Amino acid sequence: MKIGINSDMGEGFGNYRICDDEALMSIISSANVACGFHAGDPIIMDRMVRLAKQKGVEVGAHPGLPDLLGFGRRVIQMDAAELEKHMVYQIGALQAIAANAGHRVTHVSFHAAMGNMVNADPDMADVVARAIATIDRDFIVFSQPDAAIVHAARKVGLRILTLFLADRAYDENGHLVSRKLPNSVITSVEAVAERVKRFLDSGTVQTIEGKSIKVEARSILIHSDTPGSVNLAGTVRRVIEQGGGEVTPATVLLN
Amino acid sequence: MKIGINSDMGEGFGNYRICDDEALMSIISSANVACGFHAGDPIIMDRMVRLAKQKGVEVGAHPGLPDLLGFGRRVIQMDAAELEKHMVYQIGALQAIAANAGHRVTHVSFHAAMGNMVNADPDMADVVARAIATIDRDFIVFSQPDAAIVHAARKVGLRILTLFLADRAYDENGHLVSRKLPNSVITSVEAVAERVKRFLDSGTVQTIEGKSIKVEARSILIHSDTPGSVNLAGTVRRVIEQGGGEVTPATVLLN
Amino acid sequence: MKIGINSDMGEGFGNYRICDDEALMSIISSANVACGFHAGDPIIMDRMVRLAKQKGVEVGAHPGLPDLLGFGRRVIQMDAAELEKHMVYQIGALQAIAANAGHRVTHVSFHAAMGNMVNADPDMADVVARAIATIDRDFIVFSQPDAAIVHAARKVGLRILTLFLADRAYDENGHLVSRKLPNSVITSVEAVAERVKRFLDSGTVQTIEGKSIKVEARSILIHSDTPGSVNLAGTVRRVIEQGGGEVTPATVLLN
Amino acid sequence: MKIGINSDMGEGFGNYRICDDEALMSIISSANVACGFHAGDPIIMDRMVRLAKQKGVEVGAHPGLPDLLGFGRRVIQMDAAELEKHMVYQIGALQAIAANAGHRVTHVSFHAAMGNMVNADPDMADVVARAIATIDRDFIVFSQPDAAIVHAARKVGLRILTLFLADRAYDENGHLVSRKLPNSVITSVEAVAERVKRFLDSGTVQTIEGKSIKVEARSILIHSDTPGSVNLAGTVRRVIEQGGGEVTPATVLLN
Repeated sequence: MKIGINSDMGEGFGNYRICDDEALMSIISSANVACGFHAGDPIIMDRMVRLAKQKGVEVGAHPGLPDLLGFGRRVIQMDAAELEKHMVYQIGALQAIAANAGHRVTHVSFHAAMGNMVNADPDMADVVARAIATIDRDFIVFSQPDAAIVHAARKVGLRILTLFLADRAYDENGHLVSRKLPNSVITSVEAVAERVKRFLDSGTVQTIEGKSIKVEARSILIHSDTPGSVNLAGTVRRVIEQGGGEVTPATVLLN
Repeated sequence: MKIGINSDMGEGFGNYRICDDEALMSIISSANVACGFHAGDPIIMDRMVRLAKQKGVEVGAHPGLPDLLGFGRRVIQMDAAELEKHMVYQIGALQAIAANAGHRVTHVSFHAAMGNMVNADPDMADVVARAIATIDRDFIVFSQPDAAIVHAARKVGLRILTLFLADRAYDENGHLVSRKLPNSVITSVEAVAERVKRFLDSGTVQTIEGKSIKVEARSILIHSDTPGSVNLAGTVRRVIEQGGGEVTPATVLLN
Repeated sequence: MKIGINSDMGEGFGNYRICDDEALMSIISSANVACGFHAGDPIIMDRMVRLAKQKGVEVGAHPGLPDLLGFGRRVIQMDAAELEKHMVYQIGALQAIAANAGHRVTHVSFHAAMGNMVNADPDMADVVARAIATIDRDFIVFSQPDAAIVHAARKVGLRILTLFLADRAYDENGHLVSRKLPNSVITSVEAVAERVKRFLDSGTVQTIEGKSIKVEARSILIHSDTPGSVNLAGTVRRVIEQGGGEVTPATVLLN
Repeated sequence: MKIGINSDMGEGFGNYRICDDEALMSIISSANVACGFHAGDPIIMDRMVRLAKQKGVEVGAHPGLPDLLGFGRRVIQMDAAELEKHMVYQIGALQAIAANAGHRVTHVSFHAAMGNMVNADPDMADVVARAIATIDRDFIVFSQPDAAIVHAARKVGLRILTLFLADRAYDENGHLVSRKLPNSVITSVEAVAERVKRFLDSGTVQTIEGKSIKVEARSILIHSDTPGSVNLAGTVRRVIEQGGGEVTPATVLLN
């Protein structure tokens, strides 16, 4: 069984760091690189892209709302056309950083509030998906299944890589439990191992209410800012490989 | 005689505007579009690129130091590798904005302090020129002649479009007079007309000391934030056309 | 009849200007000075405070959401405690700038989205009013009447100066018509003159639906970013003085 | 022997943290609180001030250049009047945050590049010292001895608290070794213990060249962003107390 591991990377800024990006880069198959709006800066982006290249990791843009103070997690009023331009800008910035480092951007994965907006609003998703396709028709969109952006991306011919979030609790509707609620973020190595095993074995996740629901996904996401993220990602990789699976980059998975 | 007119465009931010960009776009042949660091934002960049496309104007990136407060005019300590990444980021951002709008970035023109840095420091210029070439070997670098960036760009095979600054005083060494000094910025329509005529007729400019010096240039620059910039640019165009010249985009000039 | 004229001042940033602040400062009795979050910077704030002192104008803090890109007009998710700290920070910054310039901050007037939030949410208004009182119990809160912040401010013993917005349309519920709707901003000198006359004569305003409603107010606000703001403010002053009224600072009005 | 321990605190931003501020606050006697320009935001500042109050720690403003990306460590061209306003703004912001939390700002300690500028330039130091005095004549200025700001502060009647930097190497002229050079930052607990012991016993420090030079200081500074800062500060406190010294706040030391 082939499956991806991806993580949001380079989410520091200037002097600030969120996690040990270098250690995490040795574990994952796809890096979603922050592009300077909710986190990241040109120096960090360049370092991420070079690390990824060196370790054989694919890179994607991880665009967010222009809100460093809120780490891109706060909704900011913005219409579809505004959000589109903010996303396009960030993707292009990373593409040039990658070109200059001899690497190439192959996917797009939305951050936090920007992700929520394109997951919830079909019109916004359509605008955004069309814009992604104008930049590069070969981009893969990383997303939870059943989001508006998935349907919109399919309509314009973009490929999708569906995600299972190993460090975030789901509710019985298959939605993520809000970060403001208790137990929404899963930081225990054992719990993450258990969740990944279950997902690999049965394609299900146990919701916060205790139910079992189906999850369709081809890549497992660990957030780099989850406490202990490097250990958690290592756990995901170990569970996959112990089960006979193979950690595989997105472009190979979808080929 | 074929010659270009170019201007720094889209140097507003959010609610702020520097000049009537739409009017100016009807006059020039090349627009140097601010990329969000010293000025500009994704919405404004998109508007500039669409205006340019509609009016047959070529667009270039106008990268600056990350200093909205100082409008990119203050030196900020940065080494060559840092400056390189800041420039690359901005060029890429504009490329994607242009792709999404059906236009294409064909040149790079540095803003203020970033320009001074790459004009003065040969090592920095080399790093920067190589980076530009990694993004697109067909980029044209707009620059005053004799700057370090010109020599560096030539070395890596990039084409150069040399500039005459119609609204800025020169000293007898051919350098710009600092904006902090009196009479460094020329805002009179008559003075600009006189300077352009003289440049077209004899390829010279009268320096602030009263001497006549040679200026080699294939495009005339008006800064959009010079008071009355739309009138000044219109004057430049009128003088060129009355003299039988033809305002011509950079890619045509260098073909 | 004594009445105030106030305006939001210093809403530029770095190189950017919104209006001719110096001309406007000669007309008004109270200046609401932007404090660096939605607009303004330390240099501009200092200039505003010194201009105000020189022209006998009282200064107040004009705090906004931390959103230069959106000019403080976009809602950003923030709870009461967060909004409180953002407001307190800005008031203090202006107080020190004023102290250093030999002037004194005597009122607080909220900007745009921050204003909407404290006008609409009684709990947020309570938190904010208490915070204002901890900084200086003598602060006067400028507000439209009937806003949550008015009731909250009264509870903690702060004085209120009620506002009539001469350049913004009202609906029949006495609310401002959204800036996104047509005719929400009134830029005609004649219309503003008519509105001020009517307000002074009968204490009413004609709503966008054509009804006449009561407006209780002791100061008239012109936004500095309304096109032609200096002329509009001059018109307000002329109408007041032609009607035998006297333009009067807030601390005198409420004494 | 009475001596202070101080640290730069609250140097995170939004989601970012530099160190365990709460643990550090239990060790020091004076907190230099970042004010939002090189680091810090209103929420963090409020948390710092409340923590300080709760733990009996005095708070001072720690103003820096407006450069979050560079953590205030890069020189930005700015004249004395500009730097003055940037400093005044930050001090005022913290004063209001402190007032709202029931605490009080009693000192000023400059950050990085802003500190270097006021330490090196007597005219700038004069402007800045006068501005500090206009805000509060009782402010104590924290500084290394022999800096321009010390002389300037004395001239306007401000009190000085001289600093010994336990985690930074000195050269034989008594200057700090640049952070860009090797061994400029001292992160070993043993080395810091040794330095503090030597300073307490003999009032000297061993320079990077191996010489012994005199250091006059009444408070010991540990930078919160030095790796292991909480341990280092704990070490400083332990060495002081084992030597029979008493960790003492600045206002008591100078009384």
